[in-house]
Amino acid sequence: MSSEDQRVAVVACMDARLDAAGFLDDWPAPVHVIRNAGCRTTDDVLRSLAASCAMGTRRILVFHHTDCAMAAHSDEQIRALLPPGADPEVNFLAIADPVEALREDVLSIRSSSLLPADIEVSGFIYDLDSREAREIQV
Amino acid sequence: MSSEDQRVAVVACMDARLDAAGFLDDWPAPVHVIRNAGCRTTDDVLRSLAASCAMGTRRILVFHHTDCAMAAHSDEQIRALLPPGADPEVNFLAIADPVEALREDVLSIRSSSLLPADIEVSGFIYDLDSREAREIQV
Repeated sequence: MSSEDQRVAVVACMDARLDAAGFLDDWPAPVHVIRNAGCRTTDDVLRSLAASCAMGTRRILVFHHTDCAMAAHSDEQIRALLPPGADPEVNFLAIADPVEALREDVLSIRSSSLLPADIEVSGFIYDLDSREAREIQV
Repeated sequence: MSSEDQRVAVVACMDARLDAAGFLDDWPAPVHVIRNAGCRTTDDVLRSLAASCAMGTRRILVFHHTDCAMAAHSDEQIRALLPPGADPEVNFLAIADPVEALREDVLSIRSSSLLPADIEVSGFIYDLDSREAREIQV
């Protein structure tokens, strides 16, 4: 699926259960791994992917996962757990609909002007129980 | 160093050579792993860490590393490799001074109002050759 000619970058959720489950075991080793809360496509993810593509990445794999805390909590619930005095305007990008959120995140990467127009972007929801990645067509 | 009472989150560079070198082998398994280009403390890292702390994280480990591409290239050099039409204003947060950059990144985490005031934050530069992490006092 990959080769020296097709360097791969991975975007994934920060949840370390992904590592314990070996979510990348069935894939060629990526050159870059970008992770944040919920695997949401933020400006920082696009900055990192742009740098990755500038260094030769030609394919991007996006890994949401089952039982994600960012889907189990709303922004309001997370804000309620912040320290007193925390900025109440922070958008936590909590996930209402897991499949729709993955689609949004893949499309935001595909449409970024910072990345090559022909970049290949695939989206998956990794099942932490079955240890299988389900590709979501976008 | 960690226990059920001291859940750890890691912030690290996206460079997958860190994984190949086993940069976390000498540490208790973290609950969250956040990664971007250069391991820079961006708004997205603070969003992710705030969510992590809201879910119980009490210690944060920050891992810059030797031979980082974000220190080998300037913002201008990365921008020159972007596709035609890319936003020329993107700040890639390239690293001029590795130790100073790590200090900035640790201090930005420590001073964030989104995180508990007593959060413990430690910064390291991981040597990809010797496979040892050097703690930088901040």
